[in-house]
Amino acid sequence: MTTIDIPDDSLFGLDNLPYGVFSTPGGERRVGVRVGDHVVDLAVALDDEVFARPALNAFMAQGHARWVEVRERVTELVSGDVPDAAVHAVADVTLHLPFEVGDYVDFYASEHHASNLGRLFRPDSEPLMPNWKHLPVGYHGRGGTVVVSGTDVVRPCGQRKAPDEAAPTFGESRRLDIEAELGFVVGTGSELGSPVPIEEFAERVFGAVLVNDWSARDIQSWEYVPLGPFLGKSFATSVSPWVVPLLALQKARVATPPQDPTPLPYLRENAPWGLDIELAVEWNGEVVSRPPYREMYWSPAQMLAHLTVNGASTRTGDLYASGTISGPERDQRGAFIELTWGGKEPVRVGGEERTFLQDGDEVALTATAPGASGGRISFGEVRNRIVPANHPGR
Amino acid sequence: MTTIDIPDDSLFGLDNLPYGVFSTPGGERRVGVRVGDHVVDLAVALDDEVFARPALNAFMAQGHARWVEVRERVTELVSGDVPDAAVHAVADVTLHLPFEVGDYVDFYASEHHASNLGRLFRPDSEPLMPNWKHLPVGYHGRGGTVVVSGTDVVRPCGQRKAPDEAAPTFGESRRLDIEAELGFVVGTGSELGSPVPIEEFAERVFGAVLVNDWSARDIQSWEYVPLGPFLGKSFATSVSPWVVPLLALQKARVATPPQDPTPLPYLRENAPWGLDIELAVEWNGEVVSRPPYREMYWSPAQMLAHLTVNGASTRTGDLYASGTISGPERDQRGAFIELTWGGKEPVRVGGEERTFLQDGDEVALTATAPGASGGRISFGEVRNRIVPANHPGR
Repeated sequence: MTTIDIPDDSLFGLDNLPYGVFSTPGGERRVGVRVGDHVVDLAVALDDEVFARPALNAFMAQGHARWVEVRERVTELVSGDVPDAAVHAVADVTLHLPFEVGDYVDFYASEHHASNLGRLFRPDSEPLMPNWKHLPVGYHGRGGTVVVSGTDVVRPCGQRKAPDEAAPTFGESRRLDIEAELGFVVGTGSELGSPVPIEEFAERVFGAVLVNDWSARDIQSWEYVPLGPFLGKSFATSVSPWVVPLLALQKARVATPPQDPTPLPYLRENAPWGLDIELAVEWNGEVVSRPPYREMYWSPAQMLAHLTVNGASTRTGDLYASGTISGPERDQRGAFIELTWGGKEPVRVGGEERTFLQDGDEVALTATAPGASGGRISFGEVRNRIVPANHPGR
Repeated sequence: MTTIDIPDDSLFGLDNLPYGVFSTPGGERRVGVRVGDHVVDLAVALDDEVFARPALNAFMAQGHARWVEVRERVTELVSGDVPDAAVHAVADVTLHLPFEVGDYVDFYASEHHASNLGRLFRPDSEPLMPNWKHLPVGYHGRGGTVVVSGTDVVRPCGQRKAPDEAAPTFGESRRLDIEAELGFVVGTGSELGSPVPIEEFAERVFGAVLVNDWSARDIQSWEYVPLGPFLGKSFATSVSPWVVPLLALQKARVATPPQDPTPLPYLRENAPWGLDIELAVEWNGEVVSRPPYREMYWSPAQMLAHLTVNGASTRTGDLYASGTISGPERDQRGAFIELTWGGKEPVRVGGEERTFLQDGDEVALTATAPGASGGRISFGEVRNRIVPANHPGR
């Protein structure tokens, strides 16, 4: 038996206990919980086959009461002795995509981000569309290209047309960007024709991950009218390997900023689900931005209620992300197109003036939230490197 | 042993042989081929476990050479004697969603439809956007709400705002519509970072289905700027139960209408993949429109090349649809918003003047194509009924 050492200042203490999927060299994928710098193999520790799976989906589908029970059992377990065979150093394992992704939806819930992008993409119009304060604007992305932290991002090619060019050309994206977001993972699905009431959010949503919704701005700006972003986004969306349970985020709950006009009844919250989570964006190792999640206009409970109000069903593993998190200050912006104002105001990274991403660049998003016992808990990171485009003729 | 009787004028003769998933009363789902008015159980007839599954995915993933081989074996088999246990009357089985849907993408490939909708949604602008003739415009839809023919469509609720209203209201959609489309099912997927060249279309795509992409026009028109359609579409997309193999559609191949400007190289076809397929839209039993697929500006091979040109991966079971099929004539329009010109020019159905769908209405899409031996082959039908909204307070 082993006692897991948890340093006092660990961001992966008992207040956190996020779930992930790991493998040891030559071993199968299985579900684990991170504790300090270790991963506890739950199939071994709890002797339960639902964790001997390559994804969290089967466990998540067991529902909220079970999530509470397992969290209690894990807390008790790792506070005492754990079987040796169930404990691995994080450094010795490979982390995988933690859940099988169903549908992926991306919202647009930051007023600062939506206003900034409105000014940049449509300089002659009002920055916010008339619908923006009435509903959480969102759209479907590509579930099949959600990848885990560590996966290289291949620079996409596609059609680009600058405003002063007569016709589009084909080639590598020259305006490759990030979007720092938080993603919510549906644990228990809902039936077709049955909207999920806003108060069922915490019963339905298992947890949250960091999301980097990679964006090719030149491809996006040419293609997106009138049906929305498509290839400018669908080449990769990366997520952190640890899913922080909503159960660990109770101390992070805050009210959203005032919502005016008052939303329609199906979007009215009886309990706050704004979240006081601090993100950081590292570009080649330098923090260039600290987006504050508490500034988000729409809460994740409002997003889920909206997503299903038309009767759309949900499934275990559905992922919906917040949209880029940007605060009111320049160094709180969660996308480089905003941070550099469309490339016109470079930032200094590694002693150079930089705007969009170059091949070889590495971006890491990290985040922390207040934990139940007064310290902080971590979301880990989503870290990816840009590799050169792979296109015919190269 | 049984000899399957195939009437001379059958639209499900040896030129067709579409695949589906069926069950007999109390039985498991399994893969079958339709022949005349019968379904042949392939797990029994070919003694192959890959067909004893609830979806076509495992078979499709085996690849093009295998699709050719199985089609040859089935042709030979049903031309002679078939084991009794492998043969069921279509009337005696239940048909299910034929494949597990990965990502769902909807294109917008009819010039007539895109122009009509441009005039209706944006009366003050050019009907076609500047990008439309340079790339097949598309967006992601909701894979989890793809349902099979026969599934009731619950009228969606949501936010609607008429142009003359100050604020949106919540309620049932009052402008519920259809979109008559053809959908293409990816058989063998492709890796992240590796675009699918246009000439690999027939190797990658297994077959085609009829698609009704149900649309709530009032929800859609309020929500869709700037990120595209979301809840106006995500409540249901229905497909026909029979997947017609591309191998059965060789005689239907025609050139697309002239494309001007010439598309960029990655969208240039070396062999035509326009399709001469005739659809019919039945509204409560009356044919109100006959959309011609041969009028579609972009081919399905161009759609797949575009969908992946940014390096997006594809998976077995991905579905991409053509967008509404509309011809140049009024009675060739594949959506009621076009057919009734935004509700201003009703059509007569059942002796009444009708615009959008009412509760209890039933819509069926059917289609036929030329078969290899000179006759025609059928796509079967996608038929669904509208049932009343199911919302709090009802």
